[in-house]
Amino acid sequence: MKFPAPLSIEWMADFLSAEIVGKSDKSILGINEIHVVEPGDVVFVDHPKYYNICLSSAADFIIINSKEVTIPEGKVIFVVTDPFEAYLKIVRHFHPLTIPEKSIHNNLQVGEGTVIMPQVFIGKNVRIGKDCIIYPQVTILDDTEIGDRVIIQSGTVIGSDAFYYNTKKNRPHWFKKMESCGSVYIGNEVEIGAGCTIDRGVTGITRIGNGTKLDNMVHIGHDTHIGENCLLAAQVGIAGGTILEEGVTLWGQVGVSKTLTIGAHATVLAQSGVPSSLKGGKTYFGYPAEEAGQKRRELVWVKRIPELWKKVMEG
Amino acid sequence: MKFPAPLSIEWMADFLSAEIVGKSDKSILGINEIHVVEPGDVVFVDHPKYYNICLSSAADFIIINSKEVTIPEGKVIFVVTDPFEAYLKIVRHFHPLTIPEKSIHNNLQVGEGTVIMPQVFIGKNVRIGKDCIIYPQVTILDDTEIGDRVIIQSGTVIGSDAFYYNTKKNRPHWFKKMESCGSVYIGNEVEIGAGCTIDRGVTGITRIGNGTKLDNMVHIGHDTHIGENCLLAAQVGIAGGTILEEGVTLWGQVGVSKTLTIGAHATVLAQSGVPSSLKGGKTYFGYPAEEAGQKRRELVWVKRIPELWKKVMEG
Amino acid sequence: MKFPAPLSIEWMADFLSAEIVGKSDKSILGINEIHVVEPGDVVFVDHPKYYNICLSSAADFIIINSKEVTIPEGKVIFVVTDPFEAYLKIVRHFHPLTIPEKSIHNNLQVGEGTVIMPQVFIGKNVRIGKDCIIYPQVTILDDTEIGDRVIIQSGTVIGSDAFYYNTKKNRPHWFKKMESCGSVYIGNEVEIGAGCTIDRGVTGITRIGNGTKLDNMVHIGHDTHIGENCLLAAQVGIAGGTILEEGVTLWGQVGVSKTLTIGAHATVLAQSGVPSSLKGGKTYFGYPAEEAGQKRRELVWVKRIPELWKKVMEG
Repeated sequence: MKFPAPLSIEWMADFLSAEIVGKSDKSILGINEIHVVEPGDVVFVDHPKYYNICLSSAADFIIINSKEVTIPEGKVIFVVTDPFEAYLKIVRHFHPLTIPEKSIHNNLQVGEGTVIMPQVFIGKNVRIGKDCIIYPQVTILDDTEIGDRVIIQSGTVIGSDAFYYNTKKNRPHWFKKMESCGSVYIGNEVEIGAGCTIDRGVTGITRIGNGTKLDNMVHIGHDTHIGENCLLAAQVGIAGGTILEEGVTLWGQVGVSKTLTIGAHATVLAQSGVPSSLKGGKTYFGYPAEEAGQKRRELVWVKRIPELWKKVMEG
Repeated sequence: MKFPAPLSIEWMADFLSAEIVGKSDKSILGINEIHVVEPGDVVFVDHPKYYNICLSSAADFIIINSKEVTIPEGKVIFVVTDPFEAYLKIVRHFHPLTIPEKSIHNNLQVGEGTVIMPQVFIGKNVRIGKDCIIYPQVTILDDTEIGDRVIIQSGTVIGSDAFYYNTKKNRPHWFKKMESCGSVYIGNEVEIGAGCTIDRGVTGITRIGNGTKLDNMVHIGHDTHIGENCLLAAQVGIAGGTILEEGVTLWGQVGVSKTLTIGAHATVLAQSGVPSSLKGGKTYFGYPAEEAGQKRRELVWVKRIPELWKKVMEG
Repeated sequence: MKFPAPLSIEWMADFLSAEIVGKSDKSILGINEIHVVEPGDVVFVDHPKYYNICLSSAADFIIINSKEVTIPEGKVIFVVTDPFEAYLKIVRHFHPLTIPEKSIHNNLQVGEGTVIMPQVFIGKNVRIGKDCIIYPQVTILDDTEIGDRVIIQSGTVIGSDAFYYNTKKNRPHWFKKMESCGSVYIGNEVEIGAGCTIDRGVTGITRIGNGTKLDNMVHIGHDTHIGENCLLAAQVGIAGGTILEEGVTLWGQVGVSKTLTIGAHATVLAQSGVPSSLKGGKTYFGYPAEEAGQKRRELVWVKRIPELWKKVMEG
């Protein structure tokens, strides 16, 4: 999330009651989590294990709970007791919860020829392009941008919060919600079936590329980027921060884990599970998903075990 | 879809700017896709691979992009440049998108004793029988017929469009929507859980037989026919054009592929995947689903590989 | 379900047109199904196979279709022709279907700081605690209690009826709905994603413990009890009457069968299926779910079959 205007280092230190270490003449442009950080951003880190990743990232500003770190030239750290609470304080200040008073927010921008059917909810800061069809009972939450000629079928929810928690098992309430301030972008000619859910980015953007089609009950996690001309069949689920390059096909009930990449023109057969990245241009199958030919041969080999057993045990 | 009145061959040729080849004294009664075609129907075909299937089907009229075909006696072809666009033109003319102005369409027919709770959407041309309960936030789209004593729980969507595309990878936008003009039929005593989606037929009918029960989050694809007294547990997904005969039980998260048949009284155990037809009266398990006894023995055999290895490798 | 006031044995016998056998000076306090029965309850049983389980349960009163049973001291049986119909008669009398006239029932109790967004449905007899956020298009049905600081995202349904039927295959309509009169309890700091469904108890309570987080499209069956600080990723499904102890993690698309227990701090990896109880503190994987290390070794052994085959067959 970018701030509405650049912030000074002093303002931020004062806002967070933080000590400033390091020197920079830059302003703070936005807040992001470490996976999607850009120059000018502030990030937070609260575990020594991740200190170096954050300090050496593109972020120019780091909210941290220790001074005993080596600060790269030109970067500034904000030292606080609880960096996660500092993150929440910033997000709540610049992206407060909208309490809508009616079903369609006043500032909605809609292109010519777009049809919005009854019982649709549309939040703040939403843009919808031309010649779209939004079916009854669709929910489009704040900060969503939708292209032209998009179809969204009934019961679908766009812009739900990420499933993303700060976890510490030494307190009564283990999981604290990493509040989402990101957004959703849906390209032209995208079609989304009934009963789908597309989470917003935590601080970044969840993207569905031009011409991609989703069947019913497809779940897309936060910050996931789906390329152009992908086909996702019913009940597919994709976790957060994953990339599908263009022309990927996932058949029914496929599950894809987080922060991985599926290469262009790959096909994953029904019910397969994808725990790690897959190269493009091939067909995959099974859990963990492997090249389909290899996996099918394995199924045949399993059927030969009794023959093998007989030969070995009975001579 | 049947047309509101029989159409003359001349009207259709004029409407599509098509050349007529062949001779027939019949009228054109409806439009269907090839899987559900009936006498009097017109179908379209745009790939030489499928020319013969269409020409030899029950269809009396074929929209096609070539004259170099053998036309069976008594059939008529309409020759056009783009048969798919011709299909869309017909569907949009006779089944235009309804833009509802309110949540429950004026022409709704409801039987005695039926309860429709708040925030339900009901489209055009819907009939609901006697003593039904429609829970809050249900969406029933155009052209749905529902029997007596049916229960539909919250969040369920009936009559969403088919996930069915005309695919050509040599153009920027690969997948063009095959617009749905079919319908949904739900029999007596059917119960549908919360958060289900039932797609309409592309040109035909999606059917749920009398006495069948669906748990929550069940997805039923277009043109699928579920028999009587079937039991579909939570998160089951069934693709398009498939047939479940009577008394079939699918346990949780089972996935069933398209255009296949599961025979009467078959049971498919939880999380199994069904890629091809299954005979009735048996219990199946695994992916691809096989008879459960056989599959369970395989699981045992896999556990014996280390013993086999030891015997062979160590003598 | 507890009755609004204790009932006399004579009233019940008269209401059901039942014959009384046995003697008790207690009143009838509630009705429950056999899995959740408590002292003072009445239960029903209609199959000799289950007579003894019911007669020896905590229930003080049994509705039954035979006198030829041994009645424990101090218990009373109500003899009727069809005990299932007697159960339905009682449930319909004391828990009739509410036909809501508007989207939010008059008697709603809501704590300070709670936000209810547009297009939410809230039924009768619902309590919501402090500082909760209920997003648009959420459905909260009758008899639901929600704690403090709870977040429920769009499209989620709480309190849908159980998928639970009285089954007899020798009649035209095999499955008769066991009407639900139970409830849902959701603890403090629970977060529920978009498009989830949580069924009410059949006669008892479905519980989600404090601090537990559900991702999108999670299904929780009737009478299931989820402990504190559990994490359930997207598209998880849990059948009825199951117990998750505290700190259990289920990754995406996991399926869990009915009436089993997963021990505290267990983790079940993505897409696994759990057909029977699992001990706490371990990580599981596969279908049927086994300890992950063991299961991973099996996958490696399967890959060695060709080598084994070569050695054995070719010497």
